[in-house]
Amino acid sequence: MAEKEKLTIAVLSGDLERALAAFMLAVTGASMGMEVSMFFTFWGLNVIKKNEGSIKSKGLMRKMLNFMNRGGSKRLKLSRFNMLGLGTWMMKGLMKDTNMPSVDEFITMAHQMGVKLIACTTTCGVMGIPPEKETYRSEVESLSGAAYFLGLARQSKVTLFI
Amino acid sequence: MAEKEKLTIAVLSGDLERALAAFMLAVTGASMGMEVSMFFTFWGLNVIKKNEGSIKSKGLMRKMLNFMNRGGSKRLKLSRFNMLGLGTWMMKGLMKDTNMPSVDEFITMAHQMGVKLIACTTTCGVMGIPPEKETYRSEVESLSGAAYFLGLARQSKVTLFI
Amino acid sequence: MAEKEKLTIAVLSGDLERALAAFMLAVTGASMGMEVSMFFTFWGLNVIKKNEGSIKSKGLMRKMLNFMNRGGSKRLKLSRFNMLGLGTWMMKGLMKDTNMPSVDEFITMAHQMGVKLIACTTTCGVMGIPPEKETYRSEVESLSGAAYFLGLARQSKVTLFI
Repeated sequence: MAEKEKLTIAVLSGDLERALAAFMLAVTGASMGMEVSMFFTFWGLNVIKKNEGSIKSKGLMRKMLNFMNRGGSKRLKLSRFNMLGLGTWMMKGLMKDTNMPSVDEFITMAHQMGVKLIACTTTCGVMGIPPEKETYRSEVESLSGAAYFLGLARQSKVTLFI
Repeated sequence: MAEKEKLTIAVLSGDLERALAAFMLAVTGASMGMEVSMFFTFWGLNVIKKNEGSIKSKGLMRKMLNFMNRGGSKRLKLSRFNMLGLGTWMMKGLMKDTNMPSVDEFITMAHQMGVKLIACTTTCGVMGIPPEKETYRSEVESLSGAAYFLGLARQSKVTLFI
Repeated sequence: MAEKEKLTIAVLSGDLERALAAFMLAVTGASMGMEVSMFFTFWGLNVIKKNEGSIKSKGLMRKMLNFMNRGGSKRLKLSRFNMLGLGTWMMKGLMKDTNMPSVDEFITMAHQMGVKLIACTTTCGVMGIPPEKETYRSEVESLSGAAYFLGLARQSKVTLFI
C-alpha cells in the first residue's frame, strides 16, 4: 500500500481565528486522504488544555501564569476586535449561523478523522504547565518535543506554521 | 515544456507588515519564474477588499462586524507601534522614502505578473463578508475554500503561512 | 558526500515566544544534521540587533522609529500577558527554572552549531535601520533580500514562516 502524504501543522498561537484555520486545514487534509498531525506549542497549548478543572502546579509563578492563562478551547479569543469579548462573541454567533464547527467540535471531529494531536513538551515548562497527559483533553494522543515535530516535518508534503 | 515550480502563500493576517512580506515574496517568486498563488483568509481578506464602497450585509452582527472591520489595502495597520496611526504613518513614509511599493501598488504589480489572488470562501461567512466577487478588488481571480488551498500546497515547492 | 537536508526559517515576528520557537527548531534541526538558515525580517530584525549602543540613522522618522523600537534580544516581549513586563519577566523566570536558554544564549548556540543568521535587507529600509553589518550582532553572517530567502526555500526540505 502506498504511503499517505503527510500534512503537519504547528500551532503556536492561541488566537481563536488561528486555531480555527488550523483545524479547518487539518480536517480538510484528513478528508483528502492525508495523514495529519497537529503540534501545539506555547499559546497553542491553550487550545488543547481541558476546559474544566484547574492545573495543579508548584511555585508561585506557575500558579500565577496558570491563573492568568487558564486556557481551554472555549476561552480562545480573537487577536483583534475582541473588545472585551464582544467581537469574539459576534464571530462565534456567525460561526453558528454559517454552520462552522466550534473549536471544541473541531477537536472531536479531527480526532475521529484520525488527526494526531500532539502537545509540545519543550514549551510546557516555560508556560508553567506540568508536562502530563492529564492536563490535556483526552483527544490529545501524545506529548513530544521539537525533534519529533521536525522529524514529522521532514517527511511531510506540506508543513504549516500557524 | 517543463512545469513551473509553485509558490503558495496563505495570508491570514491583516497586519500591514505581514501583507507587505507576503507581496514582496509573491512578486519576487513570480520574477524568479515561479507560479505564485496567494490565498487570503480571515483578516487577510481585508487586504483584498475594495477600498471604496461599503459591503451590503444582512443581519445586525454582520453589519457591525463590517463597520468595525472595514478593510481595504489602505486601512491596514502595523501590529505594533501603530500608536493611533502614528507608527503606521511613519512606516508608510519610510516605504515611500525607500521606494517600496504600497500594498495597493503591490496588488496591481502582483496581478500583472500573473500572481493569482484567491479569497477564502470558508472564512467569508464567519467574517460577515458576503462570499461574492464584488466585495473584492478586480485583481482577485477567484473565491475558493480550504480544499483548494491544500490542493495547491501539495503541488507546491514552497508553501508559506503568513 | 550527500548533501544535507535544508531547514529554512523566516522570522518576521519580534515576540519573545516566536523567537524562542524559531531558535528551538533551528538548534534542533542543526543537531539532527540539517543545514539551517534563519532569515530575519521586519520585527524579527529586533532579535538580532545589538543589545548595546544606538543606531545612527538619518532623518527624524528613522530616529523616532529607532527610539521606540530599540530592539535587541534582551528587549523582546511576549505577545500576550506582557502586563507591563510582569508576564515576560515570569516566563523568563520559568525559562531559567527549566534550563531553557535565553534568546541571547540561543543565538550564540545556533551560531556555534553552524546555523546561518541572515538579516533581510529589503525590510531594513522600512524599519528605519541602516542595512549595515554593524547594526547587528557579530553572529549575523550576512544581509540579503527576499530573492535569497526564496532561493533557499526552494532547496529546503522544510521551510517555516514564524
